[in-house]
Amino acid sequence: MNFIYLDHNATTPIFPETQKFMGAHLDIFGNPSSIHWAGRKSKALIRESRISIAQFLKVSPLEIIFSSGASEASNTVIKTTFLHSLKKHFMCSTVEHPSVIKTMQYIQSLGAKVDFIPVSREGLIDLEFYKKNLTTETALVSVMLANNETGSLFPIQEMAQMAHAKGALFHTDAVQALGKHVFSLIELGVDYASFSAHKFYAMKGSGILYSKKGAPQISLIHGGAQERHRRGGTENLLGLASFGEVARQVIEKGGIDFIQKKSEEIKILRDHLENRILKEISHVKLTASENPRLTNTSSLILDQVDGETLLMNLDIKGYAVSTGAACSSGNPEPSPVLLAMGLTREEAQTSLRISLGWENSLKEVDQFIDDLKISVQKIRDIANSPYKFDLKLMSPVGEV
Amino acid sequence: MNFIYLDHNATTPIFPETQKFMGAHLDIFGNPSSIHWAGRKSKALIRESRISIAQFLKVSPLEIIFSSGASEASNTVIKTTFLHSLKKHFMCSTVEHPSVIKTMQYIQSLGAKVDFIPVSREGLIDLEFYKKNLTTETALVSVMLANNETGSLFPIQEMAQMAHAKGALFHTDAVQALGKHVFSLIELGVDYASFSAHKFYAMKGSGILYSKKGAPQISLIHGGAQERHRRGGTENLLGLASFGEVARQVIEKGGIDFIQKKSEEIKILRDHLENRILKEISHVKLTASENPRLTNTSSLILDQVDGETLLMNLDIKGYAVSTGAACSSGNPEPSPVLLAMGLTREEAQTSLRISLGWENSLKEVDQFIDDLKISVQKIRDIANSPYKFDLKLMSPVGEV
Repeated sequence: MNFIYLDHNATTPIFPETQKFMGAHLDIFGNPSSIHWAGRKSKALIRESRISIAQFLKVSPLEIIFSSGASEASNTVIKTTFLHSLKKHFMCSTVEHPSVIKTMQYIQSLGAKVDFIPVSREGLIDLEFYKKNLTTETALVSVMLANNETGSLFPIQEMAQMAHAKGALFHTDAVQALGKHVFSLIELGVDYASFSAHKFYAMKGSGILYSKKGAPQISLIHGGAQERHRRGGTENLLGLASFGEVARQVIEKGGIDFIQKKSEEIKILRDHLENRILKEISHVKLTASENPRLTNTSSLILDQVDGETLLMNLDIKGYAVSTGAACSSGNPEPSPVLLAMGLTREEAQTSLRISLGWENSLKEVDQFIDDLKISVQKIRDIANSPYKFDLKLMSPVGEV
Repeated sequence: MNFIYLDHNATTPIFPETQKFMGAHLDIFGNPSSIHWAGRKSKALIRESRISIAQFLKVSPLEIIFSSGASEASNTVIKTTFLHSLKKHFMCSTVEHPSVIKTMQYIQSLGAKVDFIPVSREGLIDLEFYKKNLTTETALVSVMLANNETGSLFPIQEMAQMAHAKGALFHTDAVQALGKHVFSLIELGVDYASFSAHKFYAMKGSGILYSKKGAPQISLIHGGAQERHRRGGTENLLGLASFGEVARQVIEKGGIDFIQKKSEEIKILRDHLENRILKEISHVKLTASENPRLTNTSSLILDQVDGETLLMNLDIKGYAVSTGAACSSGNPEPSPVLLAMGLTREEAQTSLRISLGWENSLKEVDQFIDDLKISVQKIRDIANSPYKFDLKLMSPVGEV
């Protein structure tokens, strides 16, 4: 079977050249904190990785704090700011990743006051609400650069300026933007940003907390002197090395220009995908497509097509896509992002997310649409059949 | 040059068979939370790893919370207990790993009362002090199973019973014991324990928080539903898989019996090492050798031999060892563990730690002692020479 991966907002494949790099470094094992030969080899890998990533992000290597991933990075910012700031008011959007939303709810349980900024179904964040509730008592605002579910891009530069005018710190979860969208941390002007290696074609288990020079020092994991005392714990050596290696490869291919080029190429595929779907499948709506969004993401509502059934149906044919329907990914509730944007539970239950990546081709996209049409038609036929079969029970056994 | 690694308490090498396993899984990339083919492959790897580790540790898979390492695990226990418990008294030993000591100092700064239990230079923990200061107001006690610097083993079972009798929770940092010492989490009776993969011949960047069934649920990184909502963030797939793979290999070789056998074999090497050193090198003292300790660790004081100079001298010859001297590992202070045990700064400055592992041989140990003798003699000669050369300036250039 031909496997076609169209779920790059969930995670990205590791390219053969990066796998080759990893394969060549499996025997490096020294503790980077050791000063003997074994330690020095590891320390050099970590150093090279940090330099490549800093160069790619156009920040200082000292502004990069390596972490186990973006969830740790976002937790670090929110929890430490809550514990250390005398101000106890926080803000984030209603469509943040769980690592921000759940952490905000957690500090709420510890006494923080948190305001959640609404986002419309067209992907517009409510700047009026933001302006109204942002005060000199606000400690921290956390709003993502790009949304995982819809690809919506938020006006971070403007929002960070507004936060700073009130003396609040600003954090952005930039996980979904890395490698998909051209941005500059300097221009955005944020104090902190979270990044994940595995959404950038590198290994799982590592990430970055960008901490702008001068931003209050924060630390979630105390311990050894790693990361200049900002994050204890022996480094995820191979994970971080793979992260740096992807950055190095991207720089070699043109850096930001490469990302710009990829982003434009992927937009052509995505627009083709959406045009064909809207033309060839009836009763389909796009979510948040009228406003700025990532070029790789397509969030659809397909009337009468249960998302999970569709996902399993496509899976059998070798396609990897995602849905905001309940029960997918072990979540008992439909996508909180889609619900927060004002979609009904029924709409969220029939949502489909396609997120393209660097390696996808027009041929793959066309093949996917051909098969999607068939699957949608079959599921609708059964949904409309008088026999009222339970689709979920049928699908694991074979095609419905 | 022949490289001989004798620093297994810092980290352990990854064996060729584990590297082979890793090499065969470099292309597995799906997000374990995705329900399509890419996600299922990853999920299966994580599941197998958890089962192997649980089987090896003889605990339930549900009692294992995967983390980015032991530092995260220990931080999770201490910080969450501080934030959630109504009791604000904490205890730990004076010789804990920085991930415990620094975290205890951190919660102290947030208002906790922390008592540090003294340890003698012979490696005995002060149970009288413990008994005297442990009260019904104590929230948590954290004492390591084995010390990284000296190998000292502490009476965790007894201490956990005493804590429980007062209604306190008990955590042990068991990092240094895993793979070196036979123990049973059930018999120890602790509520929480921290483990690190890279001290167990697996990759860096992953670890375990053992959380006994019924122990209060704690969480440091909020976010996705991973680890049954106890630790958010996409899993360190390859790191955890390598951890599970080592556990699987150990089970295949006899499980705890294999550890027992290795531990005895290594004891023969360590005793041989210490006997030869004490016999053939003058003015050497062993630290904490009179009481129970790991069979792999030897902590020495070599009069008139600056630890860092010795380490660099041995490094040039291909040996990886460790010292508690200042400036090693970037620490401006001599080993806090040795100082806490009552050694003078001068003694700590002349300390040497040799920590053996599964792959070391008698030949390697003998070769090491032969070279150690030469190095020690040279350094002492220069220290006693009327020219008063600065050893640190000389050593990087060549042998002294």
